[in-house]
Amino acid sequence: MTSINSQDYTIYLNDACYKAINNHLKNKKYSKIFLLVDENTHQYCLPKFLSQVQTEIEIEIIEIESGETNKNIETCSGVWSALSELDADRKSLMINLGGGVVTDLGGFVASTFKRGIDFINVPTTLLSMVDASIGGKTGVDLGHLKNQIGVINTSEMVLVDTSFLKSLPEVEMRSGFAEMLKHGLIKDEQYWNTLKDLPKLNSEGFDKLIFDSILIKKEIVEEDPLEQNIRKTLNYGHTLGHAIESYFLSQPNKEALLHGDAIAIGMILESYISSKLLDFSKEACDDIKQTFKDIYGHVAIEEIDYDPIIELLKYDKKNEHGRINFVLLEAIGKPKTDCEVDNDLIVSAFKFYNT
Amino acid sequence: MTSINSQDYTIYLNDACYKAINNHLKNKKYSKIFLLVDENTHQYCLPKFLSQVQTEIEIEIIEIESGETNKNIETCSGVWSALSELDADRKSLMINLGGGVVTDLGGFVASTFKRGIDFINVPTTLLSMVDASIGGKTGVDLGHLKNQIGVINTSEMVLVDTSFLKSLPEVEMRSGFAEMLKHGLIKDEQYWNTLKDLPKLNSEGFDKLIFDSILIKKEIVEEDPLEQNIRKTLNYGHTLGHAIESYFLSQPNKEALLHGDAIAIGMILESYISSKLLDFSKEACDDIKQTFKDIYGHVAIEEIDYDPIIELLKYDKKNEHGRINFVLLEAIGKPKTDCEVDNDLIVSAFKFYNT
Repeated sequence: MTSINSQDYTIYLNDACYKAINNHLKNKKYSKIFLLVDENTHQYCLPKFLSQVQTEIEIEIIEIESGETNKNIETCSGVWSALSELDADRKSLMINLGGGVVTDLGGFVASTFKRGIDFINVPTTLLSMVDASIGGKTGVDLGHLKNQIGVINTSEMVLVDTSFLKSLPEVEMRSGFAEMLKHGLIKDEQYWNTLKDLPKLNSEGFDKLIFDSILIKKEIVEEDPLEQNIRKTLNYGHTLGHAIESYFLSQPNKEALLHGDAIAIGMILESYISSKLLDFSKEACDDIKQTFKDIYGHVAIEEIDYDPIIELLKYDKKNEHGRINFVLLEAIGKPKTDCEVDNDLIVSAFKFYNT
Repeated sequence: MTSINSQDYTIYLNDACYKAINNHLKNKKYSKIFLLVDENTHQYCLPKFLSQVQTEIEIEIIEIESGETNKNIETCSGVWSALSELDADRKSLMINLGGGVVTDLGGFVASTFKRGIDFINVPTTLLSMVDASIGGKTGVDLGHLKNQIGVINTSEMVLVDTSFLKSLPEVEMRSGFAEMLKHGLIKDEQYWNTLKDLPKLNSEGFDKLIFDSILIKKEIVEEDPLEQNIRKTLNYGHTLGHAIESYFLSQPNKEALLHGDAIAIGMILESYISSKLLDFSKEACDDIKQTFKDIYGHVAIEEIDYDPIIELLKYDKKNEHGRINFVLLEAIGKPKTDCEVDNDLIVSAFKFYNT
């Protein structure tokens, strides 16, 4: 498999990437190319990327600082100003070479610069390959609240070169793997079983599993691009996961959690809630807890943290009319959207996580 | 005439406005309404607006400071934060009650909050009635550069209540009138002749002329929503007009120009250039200069200002591949897009303006 066709853009894989982008650059006659990187992708990914891209068009590099704390409107202002100073016009192209921060923020900056210029996503982390760069969600955080500002706008193409994963730290691989596990839980029990029995990440055959994950996400997004119904299932583990991630980000005495580590906890909590509110089996719930704890360990969430985390749920983007809408599981591969959950049950879920 | 149907939204006029919005609020079941105002519309327009709107839905008022200098991303951050603190969700509605700053900025904030919530424009200035609130352009300035950040996204409806113009200062009426004159110049010679012979603004029958202007803009926008061709004609007078406006905004020793005053100069300059590059008649060019000078007076633009203004043209959003694309006139009502102009000719145009 070398490419996955999507409604209005194509996801290219490994060797097919560079042929595709070189063709695109030949046909589209951009005035200038702006390559957005962070200090890590500048060092580890940019040399290979530039060596593969063949074009006469001038390329300017814009670097932002890595890390979720920089995924904000101030960083956007810096990139907008840089584009302006470097004479970007409506026929310019932006290429986002990086993890979720670079692709989410870069996609938003491109979608809003002079009311929108073309952009291409080149995800360099597992998380952005299987999640952030697919599906057209762009945006930045507002204070500690995740992805509150953004637009839905698709890139011209997505280039997934798994060779970039070689330089990725183990913890970042693990973080992206959580979204792959989620894809199994909401869509495909067999895929979940394959992943959870995997001896180690990035072993032989792992590329194929990445592509399967992209396919699952792409199919869901295409069925419901504007998140009216089935796309909401991609938020499994994210209602509580995002709140936990935001809470840890806001606490000076806590270390920020990687996205995957936070939603791993969210998936344990929401599988417990599923077992209490729906027919989800207790065995599956215990299996999910064990699987995630084996990979992600245990994070200290104390009783004093429960209330402020629950308080943050009101900022969840799926909320309507003040109601918090959870995605729960009826069975592995069978999600149910728009479920209401009492705060008491959320507290019980935290206790289940802590035992 | 009580309403103008547009592709995906309707523009309602005077009495029809409040019936339309009250129906809309009854049908759409919003979770909360956020009314964006500035200190002027808060005082002069909000009381009437609130007295006419009938709904059970909770309404929160968010106020920003008036003036083009506040049409920036920092003000957006304030409004995004206010929305977040006041528990806005995806089912919330934003109503922008104000001039172009409020409708442009409010439209952008709504289009990007949680990746987009519904909004309604209620223009309260002549400029925003005949221009800013129609056509789906939203956005803010980047430093002194106008409208560099934004998206194209249409409001649910536009409510044009011309009674708001009663509290509008004369200079603001004049500013909006420049866009009406422009509509005549690019689309309808008879309309241009009617307007330029008008004894005074806001006299009897002026409502009808406003509606005619809205119709002209709406027809052009519908034919080319993404500004690939004919929509560019709406930029007549704006290539140099925007540069002059940005330049005056950036100069501490110059008083900021109102938008209409700046594009009035732009239209004189660009009609001179039209007479030199196209078949545009010298008589029409002199007539345009006289008409605008009678209404807008003469603004001091010195020789030392020419170069920095020309330098600013490179930020014009119509530029492609470093080429500045002017809209010129072949005749009144007959514009031509994508014209290249030498800097020497622009200098001559400034000299023509100054004589």
